[in-house]
Formats: sequence, C-alpha cells, structure tokens
Amino acid sequence: MRFLTLPGNRMKHSAFSALGRRSAAPPISWLMELTLSRPQLISLAAGFTDNTSLPVRDVRELARDILGSRKTGQPALQYGTTAGDPTLRQLTATTFALLDGALVSHKAYAPDRVLVTHGSQQLLYMVTEALCDPGDVVIVEDPTYFVYLGILQSHGIRARGVRMERDGLSLEHLERVLTELQRTGEIKRVKLLYLVSYFQNPTGVTTSFAKKAAALKLLKRFERAAGHPIFLLEDAAYRELRFGGGDVRSALAVRGHSDRVIYAGTYSKPFATGVRVGFGILPEQLFSTVLHIKGNHDFGTANFLQRLLTRALQTGRYEKHLAQLQKRYAHKARLMHAAIAKHFPKEVECWEATGGLYFWARLPRRTRTGPKSKLFQRALESDVLYVPGSLCYADDPVRARPDHEMRISFGGAPDEAIQEGVARLGKVIHEAIRKT
Amino acid sequence: MRFLTLPGNRMKHSAFSALGRRSAAPPISWLMELTLSRPQLISLAAGFTDNTSLPVRDVRELARDILGSRKTGQPALQYGTTAGDPTLRQLTATTFALLDGALVSHKAYAPDRVLVTHGSQQLLYMVTEALCDPGDVVIVEDPTYFVYLGILQSHGIRARGVRMERDGLSLEHLERVLTELQRTGEIKRVKLLYLVSYFQNPTGVTTSFAKKAAALKLLKRFERAAGHPIFLLEDAAYRELRFGGGDVRSALAVRGHSDRVIYAGTYSKPFATGVRVGFGILPEQLFSTVLHIKGNHDFGTANFLQRLLTRALQTGRYEKHLAQLQKRYAHKARLMHAAIAKHFPKEVECWEATGGLYFWARLPRRTRTGPKSKLFQRALESDVLYVPGSLCYADDPVRARPDHEMRISFGGAPDEAIQEGVARLGKVIHEAIRKT
Repeated sequence: MRFLTLPGNRMKHSAFSALGRRSAAPPISWLMELTLSRPQLISLAAGFTDNTSLPVRDVRELARDILGSRKTGQPALQYGTTAGDPTLRQLTATTFALLDGALVSHKAYAPDRVLVTHGSQQLLYMVTEALCDPGDVVIVEDPTYFVYLGILQSHGIRARGVRMERDGLSLEHLERVLTELQRTGEIKRVKLLYLVSYFQNPTGVTTSFAKKAAALKLLKRFERAAGHPIFLLEDAAYRELRFGGGDVRSALAVRGHSDRVIYAGTYSKPFATGVRVGFGILPEQLFSTVLHIKGNHDFGTANFLQRLLTRALQTGRYEKHLAQLQKRYAHKARLMHAAIAKHFPKEVECWEATGGLYFWARLPRRTRTGPKSKLFQRALESDVLYVPGSLCYADDPVRARPDHEMRISFGGAPDEAIQEGVARLGKVIHEAIRKT
Repeated sequence: MRFLTLPGNRMKHSAFSALGRRSAAPPISWLMELTLSRPQLISLAAGFTDNTSLPVRDVRELARDILGSRKTGQPALQYGTTAGDPTLRQLTATTFALLDGALVSHKAYAPDRVLVTHGSQQLLYMVTEALCDPGDVVIVEDPTYFVYLGILQSHGIRARGVRMERDGLSLEHLERVLTELQRTGEIKRVKLLYLVSYFQNPTGVTTSFAKKAAALKLLKRFERAAGHPIFLLEDAAYRELRFGGGDVRSALAVRGHSDRVIYAGTYSKPFATGVRVGFGILPEQLFSTVLHIKGNHDFGTANFLQRLLTRALQTGRYEKHLAQLQKRYAHKARLMHAAIAKHFPKEVECWEATGGLYFWARLPRRTRTGPKSKLFQRALESDVLYVPGSLCYADDPVRARPDHEMRISFGGAPDEAIQEGVARLGKVIHEAIRKT
C-alpha cells in the first residue's frame, strides 16, 4: 500500500513548536464535553460551582450601579492597566494581610505586589513560564491539580511527586525527594514547589501552617545546591470555600520567607465562575517579569469584571454571598458524605471534607478506576461521571501511577443528583470490587 | 569595592527561565502608565478607544436582560467550555462568512474553527506558542504592532521585516526576504507571516485582497523548502473601525488557501474595550492544539462577557453601536487630519486615515523621534505624548531601525485634546526640524 500525495503538499514536518507538539488535550476539557453532550448524565466530575447559588441578583445590581452613571460606567468599559485596577489591588492586599493576621503595612502584602489575572489559572501559567525551562523540575503534591500537570507537560517540565498526609505533604518525603535530586545534580533544575494548600484539588486536604513553614525552610536549605531561589507556588483557589474549622494562614505569613512565596488566589470560585478574576501576590523580584508576560498575554484582565468584583467587595455583597455559599456547600458536602457512607462499600476510604468541592475516594489497590477501566465504563453506562484518580498523578519516574482512586465533586450537581449519582457509583464500585 | 552577602543569599543565578529573562517591559505599559500618572498630559499615544462613545447604556441593559432571570443569569455566571459559548462561535462564523461574501457553509468559516479568547491579543500569543520555537522566524510588516514584537522577543523568535506600501506589504520585498531565507537555509525556521491587515497599527494601511492572495501563494511556493506549512496570521483587530470606503475580504476568502490562514478578530475595540472578547478562526490542523493551550491558560474566557457580546450581536445593539462609533471616529480622524495639516511642518508626510485609530507621521530622516530623543523629551515637557516610531520596528539584522516617525492616535483623546495635542506636537516638531 502506497499513499500518493500531491507535490505541493509534500511536507516533511508539521509546523508545530515543541510546546505545540506537547500540548495534549487536557482531561478537564474532555470531561466537561462529555458532561455537556449528555444532559442525562450525572456529573460528579466537573469542578463547576453550585448553579442555584450563583449571585445573579447581586451581579445584576452591581452592574446596574456601575453602569448607572457615565462617570463610573465609562472607566469600567475602557482598557485598564496591565497590573489591574488599583482599588482592587489595594483591597486584595488589605484583605489577605488581615486574613493572615499580618500588619496591613507588611511588605509581603504590598498592593504593588498584587497582579490581577483572568482567573488564578492564568497566574499559574505565567509564573511557570517565567521560571521554568524545558527539562526543569517542579515538585508537586501526589496527587495534584491535573490542569497544572497539563501546564507542566506542555512546557516539557518534569514533575516529582510528594506523598500526601492528612495535614498536607509529607515533609519527610519532600526532604527525601530534594536529597535525591541533589545527589543526581538535578537540584539545579528545581524551580518550584507547587502546593494546592486549601481543600486540595483533588484530595480535599488542607496544608497546616507548620508544614508550609517547614517546607519553606527545607527549600531554603537546598537553594545553595540549586544555585538559585526555589519558590513555593501556593494555589489557594479553594481557601474561601471552607465550612468547617478556622482559616489557616497562607505561606506569605511565614516569617522571613515571604520573598519565596507566590500566592495564587481567585475571586471567581467564591463569587461567580463566569466572572473570572484571579490574582497573584508575588515576591518583588518576580513581579515585573510576570507583569511583562501578562502584557504579552492580554495587557490586562477585562476591566468590567474587575470593577464588578471591586464593587462587590466594597459593598459587602461579596462577603455576604460567600457566607451563603459556604452554608450551601456545607449542606451539599453533608449530603455527599451521607450518601457515600450509605452506598460505598466499606473497603473504600474517604476523608471528610471541611471545605472545597471534592471528596477523594480510595478503592482497594487492585480495583482500577482509570478512563479505560471497566469501572469507568460501567459508571458511564449508569450515567454517572467521576474524575479518575490517575489523571491527578504526575508522570513520576520513581513510582507507578496509582489507578484506584476517584475524585467526586458536590460543587455542580444538584442535591438529588448528588444522592442519585453516589448511589449509582456505589453500585458500580460494589460490582467492581466483587470482580477483583 | 566589595559587596558582602550573607551565606544564605549567595545565589549564582536567578531562577528565571529563558522566557522570563527575555520578557522585557512592553513599551505599551510604560506609555500607559505615563498617561495615567500625569493627568494633565495629552496622550496621543495609547490605543484607548473613545471614552464618550463607550456603550454604557447598552451594556447596562444587556446585563439587566441576561441577569433578569435565573434561567439566563445562571449560565452566564457559570464556567463555560474552553472553546467558548456555542452561540457566540456560531454567530461569529456566520458573521464573518457573510462579511467575506462567502457561503455560510464554507468550511473555512465552520463554527468549530472559532475559538473565543480573552481579547485577540491572547490568540496572537497562543498561536505563536503553538507554532514557534526559540530561533524560529516570523515575517512581519515593517513597522508593525509593537506588542506582537514583544511576544516574539520574549519567546526568542526572530522577526524579519517587509516594507510597507500604501496598499499593504511590498510583495517584491516579501519575495526577496523569502528567497534570502531560502538561500541561507533559514527558511526551515519560518513559521508565520504576521499581517495587521486592516488600518494597520501603526501605519493605518489596509492590505488589499489581491496582496493577501499573492502573499499566500508566495508562502506556498516556499513551503517545500521550509518542509512544513507557513501560515498567514491575519490580525484584523481594526477591521470594524472603518469609516471610509468598503470592507476588504479577509485572507480566509482566498480560494484554496484557507487552510493556511489564522484569522484573529475582536469584539472589544468595536464595542467596549473593558468587555474583552476576541476570537480566532483557525485551520482545522491547528485548532485542537491552540484549544489545548487555551485550556492551560485559563480553560475558557469569562462566560459573562461572552454572553454580553452574544446578546449584543443578537439584539442588533452591537451593529447599531458600531455604526455610531464609526461616525465618531470619522469625525475625530477629520479633526486630527485638519490639525496635522495646520500645525505640522510641510516636511512631515502623513497618510490619510480611512479607519482604525492612528495617523503615522514620517519626519525627515535626520529628525529623531525615539524615547531618548530631544523631540520626545520636548513633547513630554509640553505635556503631549506620542508613540515613537522606532518601537514599532523589529530587531532586523538587515537594516538599521528607523527613528524618525511617530504614531499618533485619535482614539482616546477628546476633540479639544486632539487639536491642542497636535498643535503642541507641531510646535515641537517645527523646532526639532529647524535644529537638525
């Protein structure tokens, strides 16, 4: 068999860059599309937020107020600066200083270190671009946020995983990984430790303040061998979505280490995901570089969205909405917890959720949950979707990729769907465990 | 003299990536900040749009309608898909097929080739990421959009300039550049020709359809030598801002070549720059790769903004606003034209503006206009700001960077400021020419 091609089309290669060739379909798109294309499907997969609690009325009234006069309306519809709305930057700095119990004047929380972004995801992307070359190493939690793994993969950056414990990453394992990287000389390629530190996606784990402090100290110890600073990228996307216990201070509050902390936050998940405004609080030495990258990406986040958020914060609507949202998620988490307790076999381990959007279920090791597993296919046939745990693990050369877990979300699904979805899933899991 | 450093701070290197190190301050941020920090300054520099014509009332009413019911309000405040709102993609495909006089069913305008972005700038960034490695070559107009030069620079991509004529790039020069690149073997590194094809930023030139067709044919001829496709990235950011003459068809309409055309469009400049929604129409072979990159950047443009634009298009508000905007800019362009005729010395050459936001003034060659020139400093002292022409030229090894031109915009400045600004500038130019 021989293919004939026209002379004009005889191309030896595609025109793609290395990044283009490496940019694979992110699992999140595929799962989101599955959900949207099958309306009868109960999706416990997507990290969508709760539909019924979206602040429709708040945003309507905020928009009405902002656009009620030309004086406030015009600037909201005009370009702003690349770094973001000055009032929003100021409010953000103050809010997080107070939340961390720090002085508002603390340099780690200076307004000119705040960069407003199109969702916190954009900050993760830009920080990674700013720091990492192909072949560099980022240390991640094992498991971690799968979209961040996609960012690393597309840039040819290697990930090394650190085991998770109930209160955050294992310090002992982190030290072991760093020591091993030092032994092989690869420590010179280590740029970042990436932590999803509040109600982690996917495990729900919150990293204790003591662990953040210890991790920063550990990184510092290895900086001499690395020959450059090693930063902690703290992804706090779920921080505000807590409904049990108090807040934990961010890594910015670790004394003497704030120049190594990049804090990625968002106003979208706690308010309205369709109004995408995230932000970063960056060390001085990184700020201008990431700002320049933002200038190249889009020279500034949509001003109208920034003004909506600013006004929501100023009027107290944001805070009020958040309190309601926390109650709503607490309720949904309780529902899911009860359904899991009722329907999942006793062999399945689950940690209690105190915030965020997820439960992480560990099945017996031999029961596969991956996209090609019987269990996943059977779940689809039963019209229920989960995120296979294997998607949340980096390609790490030193361990096999676990394939017996699942992330299920109570964020997007309505109450009945949570109960029905977990019931269906329980049935499928029972069946799968019986067969293995 | 010897600096003492603490042992813990003895870093051999910064942690920046090659991209991080290359990401320089874009001139646009610096100019925007100068403008914002000096309220008395008349800025003819920024590409801001006209304040008084921003559709404050339209957006208020659109927001009210969308958020008037939970049925339409909730989806607008929720996440969407990475590719964008299906209705907006459909509307965009249809609109641009019709504008190009093509059949709506033409594959070049298929809705599933439309990718919604956070401004068209984001599309330029992602396409460049998808196609270009460090050391690759992009052919640009000489001069061209300076923010795009920043994207190239930060990625270590080399730019080669092609001279501009009244109706677009010089085909003869393009052929010469390609032939030379073939001779040196560098043609293998050529990935893109970047054209700002409508009312070009900065010259105001519109590329004729015949030239787009000829350029595409020329690129095709060199593909065999390149060993891969060479794409035309058509930046149509100003297409809708025309006020003289008819529309020119896009390169997508060039028969048999649409698989080599990437069309970058925007809804922001023609409507409201604070509502940032751009889009790309991409060849099938590129679409999924750029979509995956978008997934990593932000997994989708803010849904609320997309719904606002969709409804603006559906209700006819967009079109009506655009007609008013075109009139407004025609008026401002006439004002600036008259002021230039009155105040600029006869040695200055200017092309008439038939759309867009800019006039491009060519001073005598010896009269420098760069950021460090006497003229620029004198202009600042007179409280008037322009974009130095030199910023719009790529670092091209085969020619010296011209430094005797300026871009002035009638977009953002009010009527009186246009007249007063041009008068001040005229005085400074007179003085500078006299002294050289």
